[in-house]
Amino acid sequence: MASPLHAPYLRLKQEAKNGFGQEALSNRVLDLALTSLEYLKHDCNAVELDSHVPGKEYWSYVKKGTKALSRPVNLKHFSLDGDYLTKSWNSWVAGKGDLGSPQLLYTLATAYGVASDLFDRGNKKAPATFFEIFVAHLFARSSGIEPAKKARFPVEGKQVALTMDFLFDPGEKGLKLHLPVKMSSRERVVQAWAHHRVLEAAFGAAKYKGILVVHSETKLALKTGEVVEICVPDQWLAYQVYVARMERIYYFDVPGRYAALAKEFPNLFSIENIAEFFKKKDGLKEFLFPAPPKPAGQ
Amino acid sequence: MASPLHAPYLRLKQEAKNGFGQEALSNRVLDLALTSLEYLKHDCNAVELDSHVPGKEYWSYVKKGTKALSRPVNLKHFSLDGDYLTKSWNSWVAGKGDLGSPQLLYTLATAYGVASDLFDRGNKKAPATFFEIFVAHLFARSSGIEPAKKARFPVEGKQVALTMDFLFDPGEKGLKLHLPVKMSSRERVVQAWAHHRVLEAAFGAAKYKGILVVHSETKLALKTGEVVEICVPDQWLAYQVYVARMERIYYFDVPGRYAALAKEFPNLFSIENIAEFFKKKDGLKEFLFPAPPKPAGQ
Repeated sequence: MASPLHAPYLRLKQEAKNGFGQEALSNRVLDLALTSLEYLKHDCNAVELDSHVPGKEYWSYVKKGTKALSRPVNLKHFSLDGDYLTKSWNSWVAGKGDLGSPQLLYTLATAYGVASDLFDRGNKKAPATFFEIFVAHLFARSSGIEPAKKARFPVEGKQVALTMDFLFDPGEKGLKLHLPVKMSSRERVVQAWAHHRVLEAAFGAAKYKGILVVHSETKLALKTGEVVEICVPDQWLAYQVYVARMERIYYFDVPGRYAALAKEFPNLFSIENIAEFFKKKDGLKEFLFPAPPKPAGQ
Repeated sequence: MASPLHAPYLRLKQEAKNGFGQEALSNRVLDLALTSLEYLKHDCNAVELDSHVPGKEYWSYVKKGTKALSRPVNLKHFSLDGDYLTKSWNSWVAGKGDLGSPQLLYTLATAYGVASDLFDRGNKKAPATFFEIFVAHLFARSSGIEPAKKARFPVEGKQVALTMDFLFDPGEKGLKLHLPVKMSSRERVVQAWAHHRVLEAAFGAAKYKGILVVHSETKLALKTGEVVEICVPDQWLAYQVYVARMERIYYFDVPGRYAALAKEFPNLFSIENIAEFFKKKDGLKEFLFPAPPKPAGQ
């Protein structure tokens, strides 16, 4: 069956080549999410999964008449209300609203992946590519800065170029931002810390700030419907102290064990829901252009 | 069709649980390689590939009557002569010979993956697991030291355990060895440098030496039969200078561009064929227990 998601996905991918911050890309993001939600609403049912994650319920969508499960969805953060999503999103796109509406970001980030699982199960790449473009769009449109994909610097007298996820350079007066983006941190997340270490070493420790953005850490056993969160807090502690310092870490669905890690080591980790960052309309600008410290005694 | 490789592979995997350095595992390694070679010799043909790698020819094995290609083989390093392999290997196992015979290591490291591609194409994991066990065996049997998989150390007062590929601890008088092992360095090799950085930071820079062992960097386009080597020398330079120092890097088939990198930066990189390391019977012991520097003036 030809997927109704294929064309809007390709249009989004194509549009991203013209720039990550432009309004045309905002429209493509919304199109793809709404197309995905229409499909989920009309052709699928939600079934509850066997969540082993304390305090969280997860559901899968299933095509009517079939049994294959989509990736897990935290319905608390998920909305099928296309009008609500359209209004909230367009308000932000127009520079009027923030992105703090409870379900807006999670739904936009998640809907396509869920629907894609049911049309095209083997294809993990398209949902991951969509997610990268979506997050880059959030940061590019909020800051007005187009990200680069390559860091260029000399090593031992040789000019090298390293491909990273996204790099934002607000010019002399701001902090540079290194933005690694991952669907989950399994396997490859150490790359984020290693790249940040390279940036710290090549440009000086205070030049680049790192914000790691991850969708979630859920893992679904397709046969049993069991959902767990895969977390490696020991690794994160070692990377954060011994490899490089990630200034902030944002999730679309914060894993319980990383929330606990941030609570245990508040001076080392800031791990929050991404809506916390974007619910302040100028949160990103304040991050990139921090106010100078007040003189002592005032 | 039931694979004749399945049983000897499982026996090897099971045996490795009893220790990486034991003679029983040497026998399992040889069994699996010989079974694979018998199959390649009698049921397959070698076809030349369209090598885009300067100065190197690559071949695939193909099951007679079919067209699907195995992974690329550098026939210069590959031998179908079971008697030669058995004799050379058993001589090393018995503590008499070295591993410097030109084709011994490459053939043992490669035969199972090639044959497995033709029986069980989708299964990339078994050849990678075999390769890890094989390399661990080389180092464990040569040194008489059993490797650990976890590094334990405190971070901010908390005891953490990080899973790494292999860690050899020769005790107080020797250098500790961190041995990352990869089939190819694509995607995940930065983990090797990041782990080494953690070890340097947690234990002190001179405590652990890193030896990265990689099979090869060839990539075959199955449809066209074109072979290329995927190398990222800029990344390696940045990792080696800014993340951690890998003392030595060994390949079973050294990629041309990394050989060139080592030539351009001889003080930074040592990148050689692994037979160079093992052709000295006590090469590993000399590495782990280096002679103290001679006093000045002698």
